[in-house]
Amino acid sequence: MSALHDSRVLIAGGGIGGAAAALAMARKGASVTLFERAPEFGEVGAGLQIGPHGSRMLDSWGLLDPALERGVLPGNLVFRDAVTSEELTRLDLGRDFQARYGGPYFVIHRSDLHALLIEAARDAGAELLTSQTVDDVITEGNRAVLTTADGKAHEADVVLAMDGLKSRLRTKLSDDQPVSSGYVAYRGTFPIEDVPDGQGITDVVGYIGPRCHFIQYPLRGGSMLNQVAVFESTGFADGKEEWGGPDELAVAYDHCHPTVQSATDHLWKDRWWPMFDREPIENWVDGRMILLGDAAHPPLQYLASGAVMAIEDAKCIADYADEELAIGGADAWDRTLAAVNAERAPRCNRILTTGRMWGELWHLDGTARVARNELFQTRDTSSYKYTDWLWAYSSDRAGALAAAR
Amino acid sequence: MSALHDSRVLIAGGGIGGAAAALAMARKGASVTLFERAPEFGEVGAGLQIGPHGSRMLDSWGLLDPALERGVLPGNLVFRDAVTSEELTRLDLGRDFQARYGGPYFVIHRSDLHALLIEAARDAGAELLTSQTVDDVITEGNRAVLTTADGKAHEADVVLAMDGLKSRLRTKLSDDQPVSSGYVAYRGTFPIEDVPDGQGITDVVGYIGPRCHFIQYPLRGGSMLNQVAVFESTGFADGKEEWGGPDELAVAYDHCHPTVQSATDHLWKDRWWPMFDREPIENWVDGRMILLGDAAHPPLQYLASGAVMAIEDAKCIADYADEELAIGGADAWDRTLAAVNAERAPRCNRILTTGRMWGELWHLDGTARVARNELFQTRDTSSYKYTDWLWAYSSDRAGALAAAR
Repeated sequence: MSALHDSRVLIAGGGIGGAAAALAMARKGASVTLFERAPEFGEVGAGLQIGPHGSRMLDSWGLLDPALERGVLPGNLVFRDAVTSEELTRLDLGRDFQARYGGPYFVIHRSDLHALLIEAARDAGAELLTSQTVDDVITEGNRAVLTTADGKAHEADVVLAMDGLKSRLRTKLSDDQPVSSGYVAYRGTFPIEDVPDGQGITDVVGYIGPRCHFIQYPLRGGSMLNQVAVFESTGFADGKEEWGGPDELAVAYDHCHPTVQSATDHLWKDRWWPMFDREPIENWVDGRMILLGDAAHPPLQYLASGAVMAIEDAKCIADYADEELAIGGADAWDRTLAAVNAERAPRCNRILTTGRMWGELWHLDGTARVARNELFQTRDTSSYKYTDWLWAYSSDRAGALAAAR
Repeated sequence: MSALHDSRVLIAGGGIGGAAAALAMARKGASVTLFERAPEFGEVGAGLQIGPHGSRMLDSWGLLDPALERGVLPGNLVFRDAVTSEELTRLDLGRDFQARYGGPYFVIHRSDLHALLIEAARDAGAELLTSQTVDDVITEGNRAVLTTADGKAHEADVVLAMDGLKSRLRTKLSDDQPVSSGYVAYRGTFPIEDVPDGQGITDVVGYIGPRCHFIQYPLRGGSMLNQVAVFESTGFADGKEEWGGPDELAVAYDHCHPTVQSATDHLWKDRWWPMFDREPIENWVDGRMILLGDAAHPPLQYLASGAVMAIEDAKCIADYADEELAIGGADAWDRTLAAVNAERAPRCNRILTTGRMWGELWHLDGTARVARNELFQTRDTSSYKYTDWLWAYSSDRAGALAAAR
């Protein structure tokens, strides 16, 4: 019988992280209720890259194969210079890579992965509620009380605050605000045959250049092409209230190679994403409430690990709770939250700070760009020294993957 | 009998380049007169690094051994991070290096090298005049007339305008002005036992860091330590008339490692060198006058090739003149000057532009510095791919050194 069988767990937020946490906790036997503000479950967005750190988590829940059915296994991660289009470096995602990291690197539509997690969480017995705005969480002693906008109070052993970048619940622990990067993202997914040269793209290709980058990869079995354009907003730099609009996109790639310039025609122009992260914070725990996912550690997207971190959080807290509650004691949940915070904060905060630096590296200009290109072009492509920390990580108490030193 | 035996050559400027040109031309049999403005020959400054491109030139005149007697053969070129002091990369200057480039990399006091060249030029029969300010050079047909401030006119086949960075004669070809780098250099040579840890220094060591660098190497048989501090002037950045003074030096290394900070105590504080170069120009020839040395191509000092370029110029024009005058014809000198210009301008202008970039690379900050350090630390130290263009160059018409592709 599961150690979590008598536990009541509430989750604020039904994005990828909340869905994954509902699944992980329900699988361990907890009684789970998830509160999502939107009237329906769904994810706005386009493609999502899932590294082996995420694949392994999905595999542990039996969801890797269905995810791969809906996704694509790219052959390589390829970096190109956005100005010259020349290849700078590549990472072969094939057999050796998958053997080292215990899972594949794949791409999937954000809504496909989300639907898979929601369905699995429901199948595991989690109660998933929509149109439920969480107003507050009060924790006292061994209990947490979550109140919704309709005035109802819900009592539980623990509340997972997974209400995203603009988290309302984070304000109970920190008065920090989202930090603008000054960059804006445009996305678009189109039938691959509609995009010139689209059908030749079987890799994740990133063009990196001064003040901008551009990403391409296939989606949905290769029938769609996913494109992401990210550039430094001149409007933001000029202090404008409204910034990052299509007028900026129209000239943002003028210094880039014609291949990149023409590819930017194939983006949605009616919606864009100003890019924010937050400063790392050390403490995620307020009594019986813990911040997880973007509410705790919203990254810039450069390391493609925002969704994966939330999924890692979900597996970590379910595993640790299972272990601590099996040991028992009135403070088993308190020990769990402290241990999850201690394990996850250094991991996620490193991704936050390294992600910022990785973005800066992509966007260098002048002599610094020349040095970056030379570094990329001369690096040992058989070495995993830059990526083990990211992809070989494990929160398992037995320690990190044997593969990684 | 030498082809140059009937030629009359005037040289404006008696620095290292002018002295080398007087030597090279006189050795070929020309009648040479050199005009130096100062009352005595001499060079203000401290140590000078001479790469194998310069060693080979000196060797061709039999001056390498006496130069090495006065200089030092460092074991390595070592780059360190100025903030952390960690080693970034090194270049072994030993047997393999010397075999590849046909000469050693050595350091010598600037005045020692200058004295050697002056003495050798005089021994070769060149007339070397001091307190002679060149006012103008007029060229007409096959003759050039150089006038000095005392009103005398000197007629010759050719005038070599080697009057340095602030060249008066360059104005006949270009209205460009020296370009300030915004950086200032402090130098100092001290008995090596007076400098803490000085006696352990047998390499050329360069600490490179944000907005500054610091160079150390032994001189005069290892009895002296030469130090050079170069940093970005805050006064220049603020638009001040007077900039780069000791008040700026006092705080310029505050962000650097204690080793670097304390080493900056051992510099001359009563003299400093704001650092200038010029934009490259393609045409150095005005009739029978040619700009050479710093007058034609004054570099920033990052590639340690300013003096060497002037020495290369000297050998090139002596060799080409000897060849062309042996062929003969009324335009032999015109062909010589055109050929020297054509050979030397791409070479020297590449050193100018690459020198600027090399300096930018040294002074990077933030993520760009991290990338630079990683590039330096991971580079193949047995490879000569970055340096062959600089050190394997030859103006010999038989082509560049066989060693270099």
